Amino acid sequence: MTRFAFTVEFDGRPFMGWQRQAHGPSVQQAIEDAIASVTSEAVAVHAAGRTDAGVHGIAMRAHADIAKEIAPFRLMEALNARLRPDPVAILACEAVADDWHARFSCTGRSYVYRIVNRRAPLTWENGLAWRVIQPLDAAAMHGAAQVLVGLHDFTTFRSVHCQSASPVKTLDRLSVEREGDRVSIHAAARSFLHHQVRSMVGCLAMVGMGRWSADDLRAALEARDRAALALNAPPDGLYFVRATYPGES
Amino acid sequence: MTRFAFTVEFDGRPFMGWQRQAHGPSVQQAIEDAIASVTSEAVAVHAAGRTDAGVHGIAMRAHADIAKEIAPFRLMEALNARLRPDPVAILACEAVADDWHARFSCTGRSYVYRIVNRRAPLTWENGLAWRVIQPLDAAAMHGAAQVLVGLHDFTTFRSVHCQSASPVKTLDRLSVEREGDRVSIHAAARSFLHHQVRSMVGCLAMVGMGRWSADDLRAALEARDRAALALNAPPDGLYFVRATYPGES
Repeated sequence: MTRFAFTVEFDGRPFMGWQRQAHGPSVQQAIEDAIASVTSEAVAVHAAGRTDAGVHGIAMRAHADIAKEIAPFRLMEALNARLRPDPVAILACEAVADDWHARFSCTGRSYVYRIVNRRAPLTWENGLAWRVIQPLDAAAMHGAAQVLVGLHDFTTFRSVHCQSASPVKTLDRLSVEREGDRVSIHAAARSFLHHQVRSMVGCLAMVGMGRWSADDLRAALEARDRAALALNAPPDGLYFVRATYPGES
Repeated sequence: MTRFAFTVEFDGRPFMGWQRQAHGPSVQQAIEDAIASVTSEAVAVHAAGRTDAGVHGIAMRAHADIAKEIAPFRLMEALNARLRPDPVAILACEAVADDWHARFSCTGRSYVYRIVNRRAPLTWENGLAWRVIQPLDAAAMHGAAQVLVGLHDFTTFRSVHCQSASPVKTLDRLSVEREGDRVSIHAAARSFLHHQVRSMVGCLAMVGMGRWSADDLRAALEARDRAALALNAPPDGLYFVRATYPGES
């Protein structure tokens, strides 16, 4: 039995999310089915994060235990061949220690949220970014975002379906950059609550539109009440970027 | 009668190309149909360049003469509403002088060609970039590309269907940049021959793979023979970026 770690890119548009669902396709199922096709083994694939329907992965990390003797490179090539035409690709595959766990060993997660700030509808980016029509002040968004950085009770920014034991998390980074009509929001933390990034982005958009001040954002945070949330941004613009592990650079 | 200039973004995947075709959808037809829907006028839309099937537009310029009295902003909004669900968006619309012509007034055109240089299949970029599996030496590609810059007979890099009066063109810029596994090729000229960018990119990829030297590229250029072409890159990675006009910055 070998534990294999995978780096996975996926387009979230056709999926109900990462996690296997009875009622529709998932990234987890696509990979598990591909492994079964290659090894004839029914294995469980564990990921660093369970993304929602419509959320994308740039470099999701995952692992599975496989009995068949196969080299990591050959496994990667075989899985990519089997995954077609699903928009899921194994970017890297390596054998890891038996106690390496994609979720529980992970010490840092980062996301990027992509906004296209213009009136015109999206073309090839439809479903891959959030189009915001109102002009956004990215500098104001970045300034207000710093209110959320640090150790806080993020109940306001947490889905009612969140299963996390505690709403208290440390947000390491929340930065906003503009390049032309593109506004990118980068978020990093050891872990996030369910819907936390999308909820923070929704409130930052309110700041960018001039409808909320940084003080309004602080008041929403301190309310510790989901009802204080301005807006939950759509999944379209959200990408799981990176998971970090001890001993990795 | 007012002449309106449009800036158009489009995803080339579902289209037979820019130009109206009897046998399938085109970007030109999508826009002409949208104009007809808004104004009840059968107008011809002229573009700065006629892109091939599968080629994309970041900021194509085009124009049409419209009798109906309508403000440019309202026309843009109405066209974008009518263009759905086609992946074509009017990014800007303005009234221009009667002698302004999207094609004949254009003094410069630029393209970018996007390569993803990796083994894994593409996910959300499928059809939006060319995946090249062999490692590419972008610095070698950039160096060799300079062989093509300047005034040359580009017969080797010209489709047999090219309708241009002369194969002699001045290439102003051909540069190659790498960022991670992304290789971008930027090309600028007053005008290009049919398939010229894709043909140049195909040969530069041969250089990047180490199968051609800069001297091989020079020999192909000097052969002035389509048979000397190594490879025509697929349309997927090609984007019309910008058209320039006198008096515009």
